Amino acid sequence: MKESAKRAGFSVTLKDVALKVGYSVNTVSHALNNKPDISEETRAYIFEAAKEMGYIRNSLASGLRSGFTKTVAVIVGDVANPIFSILVKHMEMLFREKGYNIFIMNTNEQPTALENAVQSAIGYNVDGMIICPTLDNLDLIERLENSKIPFVLFGRSFNNKKFNSVVWDDFNGAYIATKYLLGLGHKKILYISGPMNVSSSVERLNGYKQAMLDSSVSLDNNYIKSVSLSSKKLKKDIDNILRLGMDYSAIFTYNDIVAYEFIDRLPSFGKHVPQHVSVVGFDGLQDLVGFQKTLTTINVPKLKMAQASVELLLKTIEDISYRKQIVLPVSLLQSETVKKYE
Amino acid sequence: MKESAKRAGFSVTLKDVALKVGYSVNTVSHALNNKPDISEETRAYIFEAAKEMGYIRNSLASGLRSGFTKTVAVIVGDVANPIFSILVKHMEMLFREKGYNIFIMNTNEQPTALENAVQSAIGYNVDGMIICPTLDNLDLIERLENSKIPFVLFGRSFNNKKFNSVVWDDFNGAYIATKYLLGLGHKKILYISGPMNVSSSVERLNGYKQAMLDSSVSLDNNYIKSVSLSSKKLKKDIDNILRLGMDYSAIFTYNDIVAYEFIDRLPSFGKHVPQHVSVVGFDGLQDLVGFQKTLTTINVPKLKMAQASVELLLKTIEDISYRKQIVLPVSLLQSETVKKYE
Repeated sequence: MKESAKRAGFSVTLKDVALKVGYSVNTVSHALNNKPDISEETRAYIFEAAKEMGYIRNSLASGLRSGFTKTVAVIVGDVANPIFSILVKHMEMLFREKGYNIFIMNTNEQPTALENAVQSAIGYNVDGMIICPTLDNLDLIERLENSKIPFVLFGRSFNNKKFNSVVWDDFNGAYIATKYLLGLGHKKILYISGPMNVSSSVERLNGYKQAMLDSSVSLDNNYIKSVSLSSKKLKKDIDNILRLGMDYSAIFTYNDIVAYEFIDRLPSFGKHVPQHVSVVGFDGLQDLVGFQKTLTTINVPKLKMAQASVELLLKTIEDISYRKQIVLPVSLLQSETVKKYE
Repeated sequence: MKESAKRAGFSVTLKDVALKVGYSVNTVSHALNNKPDISEETRAYIFEAAKEMGYIRNSLASGLRSGFTKTVAVIVGDVANPIFSILVKHMEMLFREKGYNIFIMNTNEQPTALENAVQSAIGYNVDGMIICPTLDNLDLIERLENSKIPFVLFGRSFNNKKFNSVVWDDFNGAYIATKYLLGLGHKKILYISGPMNVSSSVERLNGYKQAMLDSSVSLDNNYIKSVSLSSKKLKKDIDNILRLGMDYSAIFTYNDIVAYEFIDRLPSFGKHVPQHVSVVGFDGLQDLVGFQKTLTTINVPKLKMAQASVELLLKTIEDISYRKQIVLPVSLLQSETVKKYE
């Protein structure tokens, strides 16, 4: 007969261990938590017995007693996108220095998954959260704000809302990139947007539009296309755009992943980079080991975003009324995927 | 005066909402959980009130009532290494299809961090865990086994131990790579190992050694060096190895990240790839968008590992006595960083 995992697991309590070893629950607890008032011999004996019985300390219960769990949740849109995984890694190291554990949740950019992730994190009694939301999650974020649970939005925010947030200067990054291409003589610049339900996507599109409007070249909305960020759909969306056979000399993309995919696919359509088409990305992934370094891109300060987000959350855990909106500057990183228009 | 986050947060209970709206706790609970026995009007009224009060459902409490939380933890060594982040992403999507939430914990390859992560996960009352352990964690993993909490080890395991595990054929991968270099006439092949407290590192080293022993070239332990996998130390370790000025025509590395770093650093020491030195990595990261595709490497089936790990955990959650050890085959991916020895 099968034994259910749940009936078997978690069944050994402090009390069970105490009964077995013949000490009080208090003594057993002190021994297992390495408190100094227990002799080395007794501690070793209790440890061994607890281990044999399969006892594992329930840290949530410990957390509930002290009020703080020293745990934070980091909720990202796509953990396989290196921009997120490097941010998460930096945050994890910074939190660990401060004695915090973090756990990471991946929403796959689905608003309902973010709702579930936040509710789970609350269930886990975290001291705070760092969240990368979609614009569809405004209602959830407002409820969080009402709940007075400390949180910081990173990478994306809500226009005019006074939530804690750390974002890059997405508008300006896109403006700089477009101006750069215009300055090299490109006029027909295809802009490949991300989905419109993330603020960084909206901001970057606006930056592109403003740069076009500020130039002598008129803005043509036919030159704005958008793609899904899920990897399977992205490839299909890119091929569909390339199949249109439009006339352009440059492509500026929402992020580096989209740019790299375009660079991969363009040759199949008889177009080479930069001979036929210049390409500019956004994120500066080439900071990271193993990435193609030839991409011209908008570089973003990754460690700084992690630092600012962690600091802001820790301040808010100390003082729940603390609020700050941080916008980090970005810069053009020139490389080999762009040439002058001839 | 500052208001403590903890005193403010989590303070609104079902009971508070019930008092406010004038319905029973039971009715409020059914309304907030979308049970069908509540009229649409009542549900809307209760929702609105709960939202205004900052009530957020505590899913842990729900989990405790049902016995299962439909949550699993995935614990990795370095979430910024793309081999881990892609595995985690695949696992997350597979678990989501089965109605599970996952949360991810990053240990930075520190044995004590893994201990903390596992204890937190237990505190969160997960239904199971997928863990990438170091060899220093044997004691912890044995305690987990005794606790009858379902878990699967992935990427690494313990020799001769009958834990659930899914690994790549690390020994054979290293054997194939070394044989390939030997077949091209290379005799002085530097092997760059990872730290000896991870099983994949031990297995790959053994594969290299066996291939050398099976050849007419003798095994020279001076040609085995090891590096740290933490990014700062890695760069330093590589420079130290290059500074030795050893005589070799090929380098085979523990993983692609190490290989990419060598390819980056070799030119500063007057050596070019593959003209002066051939380089072979391990992992096949070039599957992933944006990575340099020129690296010759051992490719590993990433999606298959995610699938096998998820399936094995779900089976073990159903039947706690289920055990299986899976070894997935790997293959050589030939590219441009290797040439014949001349």
